Amino acid sequence: MTSQELFHEAWRLAREVPSSTLPNPPVGAVLVKEGRILASGAHRGPGQPHAEIVALEEARRRGVDVRGAVLYCTLEPCCHTSPGKRTPPCVPRLIDEGIKEVWIGCADPNPEVAGQGAAQLSQAGVDVHWAPDQSLFQDLIREFRVGIVEHRSWVTLKWAQTLDGYAAAPDGSSQWITGLEARTEAHRLRARCQAVLVGAGTLRRDNPSLTVRHVEGQQPARVIWAGQQPLPETAQVFTDEWRDRTWILAQAGTVAWDQATRLTPGRRLAAATPAEVVRVLYEAGLGSVLVEGGPQILTAFYSQGVWDSLAVFQAPKLLGAGQKALFGTATSMADARELRVRQFSRLGFDLLWELERQGEGNDVHGTD
Amino acid sequence: MTSQELFHEAWRLAREVPSSTLPNPPVGAVLVKEGRILASGAHRGPGQPHAEIVALEEARRRGVDVRGAVLYCTLEPCCHTSPGKRTPPCVPRLIDEGIKEVWIGCADPNPEVAGQGAAQLSQAGVDVHWAPDQSLFQDLIREFRVGIVEHRSWVTLKWAQTLDGYAAAPDGSSQWITGLEARTEAHRLRARCQAVLVGAGTLRRDNPSLTVRHVEGQQPARVIWAGQQPLPETAQVFTDEWRDRTWILAQAGTVAWDQATRLTPGRRLAAATPAEVVRVLYEAGLGSVLVEGGPQILTAFYSQGVWDSLAVFQAPKLLGAGQKALFGTATSMADARELRVRQFSRLGFDLLWELERQGEGNDVHGTD
Repeated sequence: MTSQELFHEAWRLAREVPSSTLPNPPVGAVLVKEGRILASGAHRGPGQPHAEIVALEEARRRGVDVRGAVLYCTLEPCCHTSPGKRTPPCVPRLIDEGIKEVWIGCADPNPEVAGQGAAQLSQAGVDVHWAPDQSLFQDLIREFRVGIVEHRSWVTLKWAQTLDGYAAAPDGSSQWITGLEARTEAHRLRARCQAVLVGAGTLRRDNPSLTVRHVEGQQPARVIWAGQQPLPETAQVFTDEWRDRTWILAQAGTVAWDQATRLTPGRRLAAATPAEVVRVLYEAGLGSVLVEGGPQILTAFYSQGVWDSLAVFQAPKLLGAGQKALFGTATSMADARELRVRQFSRLGFDLLWELERQGEGNDVHGTD
Repeated sequence: MTSQELFHEAWRLAREVPSSTLPNPPVGAVLVKEGRILASGAHRGPGQPHAEIVALEEARRRGVDVRGAVLYCTLEPCCHTSPGKRTPPCVPRLIDEGIKEVWIGCADPNPEVAGQGAAQLSQAGVDVHWAPDQSLFQDLIREFRVGIVEHRSWVTLKWAQTLDGYAAAPDGSSQWITGLEARTEAHRLRARCQAVLVGAGTLRRDNPSLTVRHVEGQQPARVIWAGQQPLPETAQVFTDEWRDRTWILAQAGTVAWDQATRLTPGRRLAAATPAEVVRVLYEAGLGSVLVEGGPQILTAFYSQGVWDSLAVFQAPKLLGAGQKALFGTATSMADARELRVRQFSRLGFDLLWELERQGEGNDVHGTD
């Protein structure tokens, strides 16, 4: 296998981890000797062993000698111990096990690593090589990077709309714009995030369950961003079997703030702006959030620039009138914001646009 | 080669005819003997020989004996002579040439043929077989069918919009929503139609040339649908090198009606509604029309049900405010019109949705 194929295998292992690994990055690792894979592994989240260690342990279980082996890993191996870190650093272990060569996808943006892992390996006589094109590996850890560098949650704004851009009809009805395949994919997006957020208006109007259905996957936290109005206390999110995974964002002095004491004890957070929301969610251990609406909430995040990714489901339907998911203040075509298409997916008769900011991230990918 | 492969070859020949064959259908034909293709051909438009004859003539040029050969053709061979028909009927020729077996993609919807071509072949002792799945062949002649059955032009409504469904910014600016690849494809759409139509408002605002540029292809007629206001007489469509391909639709008694006498002598048509427009265009020999705007015109055609196909270019841009291509009177989501996705195409960073009415036409195709 070529170096590129081995890197791809490590990348694939990291990418196929089904749930969020946050606040840790997804990482894949492959151990190779004489062109053959000895063992491989992926990191599966906090408290779990790092990918390099998973691969080393697998090799040991199989009775394979790893001395002189080559390691491919999507992210720079770690070299730090710090308060709260639950696993020992990987670099000393790799040196102890006699790994002779390490190929690294990209540097760890964690300031406690940031090239020092690679440096320590070199100093110990290990041959260190970097991937010729790091973009694929940087893309893999985009959510982790936002957390470790900006100390905030990764934000995906999600909505469904008709071909002509309406997220709801004039009477507010919106069920269903898209078909079953698209709605199933929306559940997959939920399962990959640590939190799902809606405004209190959506709670009052739709009483959504905000659970993961139709797909295997973890149930994310449900976050209700309250305003000045009281919250509907009998809503599903406060009463169903997942009620202890519901959080309330509110401001002191509001009715909802006091309700939260009863409804979500220990899961009440103070926030008044999208920037505060993503900071307090991050501090609460919710490293990625899928913002599902309604339009006021989506527009607040979007217009204040507090977003990383858009997931727009679009159905081949025309309404001719209705309510938009986002509203803005553009005057001329020059005011249009250009987005980068990360991926298009066909979902039955519908389409999913996954979009990012222009000028950041990586090349356009496509599954179709 | 299998029967399916030979049918596919005939279909490909018909499909690759670069310009509109209207008022005739595109047709492809393949002559086969002992599993090998002897000759093939396609019909290229009015006054040109039919596909079967093109194939027979090619065989003759090559000195190939076609007696006992098998013919695959996408459409039922014709058997009629009628006033205005410039070519002799194909069925007697096929019989004379000793073709022993004919495979037909679908029946000719022309009431003068409509199964009689196949019947005459059978009566003469030719083995006639029909394609097991005729949908692909019916799809090929969808524009022809609308003409021969409904005596009107085929209508494609075309616009470009942002992700959030705006065809123009609040100040009316719309250049450019999409990138060069999408705009080039829009010229390809023009070259495949016999007419391009805009309202007089678009003429006053944008002064478009409505010509085919960036691609090889025929220049369609340019049709201006005038209203109550005078037409801008110095507009490009009335003054450039293609001015003798410009038509005016107007109502008697308006200023534009009188202007048309001077501006487009012999190319003035009376029409007050979309239904009248497609009837008079058809009678004028313009069998397909690409309606490019503006919103009033697009909405008139759409809301009155005078359309066959939509071509919607969409760019990954958000405006948040602006003007829509279509406006309607939906109240609830149940009022949404579901469309059939005929094809999605990626064009650079943009997307082209080609849509048809639900419940007509054929399966969803996709190039990507």
